[in-house]
Amino acid sequence: MADLILTSPSNPRLKAVAALRRRRTREESGRTLVEGYEELGLALGAGVRPETIYYCPELMLDPATQTRVVDEARRDGVETVQVSRTAFERTAYREGPDGFIAVVPSVGQPCRDLAVGPRALTVLCQGVEKPGNLGAMLRTADAAGVEAVIAADPVTDWGNPNLVRASKGTVFSVPVASDPTPDTLAWLDANGIALVATTPDTEVLHTEVDYTGPVAIAVGAEKYGLTDEVLQHAAHRVRIPMVGKANSLNVATSAAIVIYEAVRQRAAATRVAGAARRPGRPGPTDPTRVRSTP
Amino acid sequence: MADLILTSPSNPRLKAVAALRRRRTREESGRTLVEGYEELGLALGAGVRPETIYYCPELMLDPATQTRVVDEARRDGVETVQVSRTAFERTAYREGPDGFIAVVPSVGQPCRDLAVGPRALTVLCQGVEKPGNLGAMLRTADAAGVEAVIAADPVTDWGNPNLVRASKGTVFSVPVASDPTPDTLAWLDANGIALVATTPDTEVLHTEVDYTGPVAIAVGAEKYGLTDEVLQHAAHRVRIPMVGKANSLNVATSAAIVIYEAVRQRAAATRVAGAARRPGRPGPTDPTRVRSTP
Repeated sequence: MADLILTSPSNPRLKAVAALRRRRTREESGRTLVEGYEELGLALGAGVRPETIYYCPELMLDPATQTRVVDEARRDGVETVQVSRTAFERTAYREGPDGFIAVVPSVGQPCRDLAVGPRALTVLCQGVEKPGNLGAMLRTADAAGVEAVIAADPVTDWGNPNLVRASKGTVFSVPVASDPTPDTLAWLDANGIALVATTPDTEVLHTEVDYTGPVAIAVGAEKYGLTDEVLQHAAHRVRIPMVGKANSLNVATSAAIVIYEAVRQRAAATRVAGAARRPGRPGPTDPTRVRSTP
Repeated sequence: MADLILTSPSNPRLKAVAALRRRRTREESGRTLVEGYEELGLALGAGVRPETIYYCPELMLDPATQTRVVDEARRDGVETVQVSRTAFERTAYREGPDGFIAVVPSVGQPCRDLAVGPRALTVLCQGVEKPGNLGAMLRTADAAGVEAVIAADPVTDWGNPNLVRASKGTVFSVPVASDPTPDTLAWLDANGIALVATTPDTEVLHTEVDYTGPVAIAVGAEKYGLTDEVLQHAAHRVRIPMVGKANSLNVATSAAIVIYEAVRQRAAATRVAGAARRPGRPGPTDPTRVRSTP
């Protein structure tokens, strides 16, 4: 069956899609947008079920292959709507759209709804402002097998289109949560998760603490870092050694450096544990490969 | 003495400034632009001597403080030119300019002009496309005390305004070079620098090789990674362990993770060397603090 084709940018449905660029509309509707073929593929791969896929073959890089995604979604009962080039370009958030926009349920939950394992590696971002930095942290978290990324006092919602894009769709594969800072800290305590806070104001290097137990790595806002509330709650305050002239590393880069120090320590701990067992018995699962939440 | 005030965006001098947004003009003239108060401060701090500073007090966040930079530069013999708001906004590269644009000599040299120490930690970026990624790598290189960053077969020149901006001015503090790949590899060999190439196609983890000697960490283009030419030349091919669903870490993030593994190993090696000496004798300089080039 041929899809409905929308040709007017002022069509009320397309206007409703464009309205999801606004945070308020996203929060009120519980929906957000995924733009782009690659990002949509990652969201689908993470189990996201779109409400509607808007598509424009004329804008696709390779329509013969790429429209298959639309056909498959339609077979699965997803609504699919074809849109003319002009109308699509007006509706899309990004310049040079590639013919795919999906409306999907929002992600993000309060911490209490997170399910994490007994040796959870988690990341806490407090007040991070730039969607691109949050997206970059999610890519790293996804690669490193981080079990949850929590935004404390978030400035940006997890459905922000620039964040979704910068995350390459990993915002749908890594469990994410948002909460006020006190609730976040209480959740960490309740789950026995030790807080490691990054700050320039300490002599302890990030390589000098133990990340092999349940741990949350905390990074703060781009300009101001973590608040005293978080710093005082931390089991460890650590700094990344810096010798250069610029005042600081990018926040997503800092997070990546500390996250991968944790991955390194956990892999080394697993090797030691494995070496201590008799040969022939299976070793424990590599902790960096555990994903306790779907 | 009051400065010349330019009020027309079509003034030939301002047109010449705007022309520096083009790579070809930058390469032909040997000049590039630094926009922004913070970036200019970092460039000046790194010893850059601008040819001309164009400024607009009306656009500055804090004219009373910030015009001091202009006064000081003028006293040092730098030409300073005041520009009206409209003309400045038309000339600026970025949206919402903050009242500072400087014309400065280009950076970047062939490898043979680099001066590196006997245990150089260097970074090789082959064909990296996005100026933002190169800028991010420079920030990390600056923080980590990397002695040189070399662009092999560069797609972007070091004077690209987006690169300068993303680097927060560190493009002027970290020694940078560009060369064709064969010349770069020959330079590494001639200087006894071992090449560690990042690639997903190896079983060796990035934490499993030794970075305490002279070493170049190589990362490739965003989409395609390093070429076979570089991979085959490498002393070690390493991968960063990844468990997630997205296909790869961002290239600048990957570089940061490997660079800081090198910093960790070098600091640990220095501590061991220090512990082996008799107390009372000064230890070697922390290798991460050596900057062999100004």
